[in-house]
Amino acid sequence: MQPGSPEADWREDCAPRRVLALFATKWTSMVLHTLHARHAGRARTGALLRSLPGISKKMLTQTLREMEDSGLLTREVQSVVPPAVEYALTALGRRFVEPVEMLYAWGRDNADALDAIGSRPTARRG
Amino acid sequence: MQPGSPEADWREDCAPRRVLALFATKWTSMVLHTLHARHAGRARTGALLRSLPGISKKMLTQTLREMEDSGLLTREVQSVVPPAVEYALTALGRRFVEPVEMLYAWGRDNADALDAIGSRPTARRG
Repeated sequence: MQPGSPEADWREDCAPRRVLALFATKWTSMVLHTLHARHAGRARTGALLRSLPGISKKMLTQTLREMEDSGLLTREVQSVVPPAVEYALTALGRRFVEPVEMLYAWGRDNADALDAIGSRPTARRG
Repeated sequence: MQPGSPEADWREDCAPRRVLALFATKWTSMVLHTLHARHAGRARTGALLRSLPGISKKMLTQTLREMEDSGLLTREVQSVVPPAVEYALTALGRRFVEPVEMLYAWGRDNADALDAIGSRPTARRG
């Protein structure tokens, strides 16, 4: 395969595939969005839990750990009573706010297209 | 919850969540893109298989069936020898080309941010 060939954009590690892989864990983008849009980039676990209807505490914890490992956010244990953990977007995390917002804005403006979808592809995945 | 409240955008069936759910099956967006950008909206199974390095025939068949059920594409059996099946984007499917292209363009333009991600969140999902 030549660089610049049509195939170059479809290598298994190409950028479009990697951005999809990141968003495939659906809560990652929602945590990015809610941290940015509702918490000015910084929030405690409890506040995130309340901002994300439907997420379980276990799933939120796992998502936050993965995002910390990826360098998208930092985790800070605060010496308060009761103990609190605060998460903040890193500079890298803030980079990914843009594609999340683009995608969500499209979804809001095109709810009719989403309504027209006959069945939910992911509903079968269990 | 009041309509228009901050929570309205985070209901489990809100548009942003539904657009994510659609893209969470990663091959859906790649099939939309490749059908649009490389095959002018219409292609046979074999051509799609060659355009999508890394997809298995089984996964492609499953993705195409789900997309047909969703109304994103049509399936047409052609009376040729050997028999061929051709898939074509519907008007609804073409609607979803736009967000896919936006997301992929962002990924291409921001490959450095993707490179900076420490570990792949989805790599743990197995």
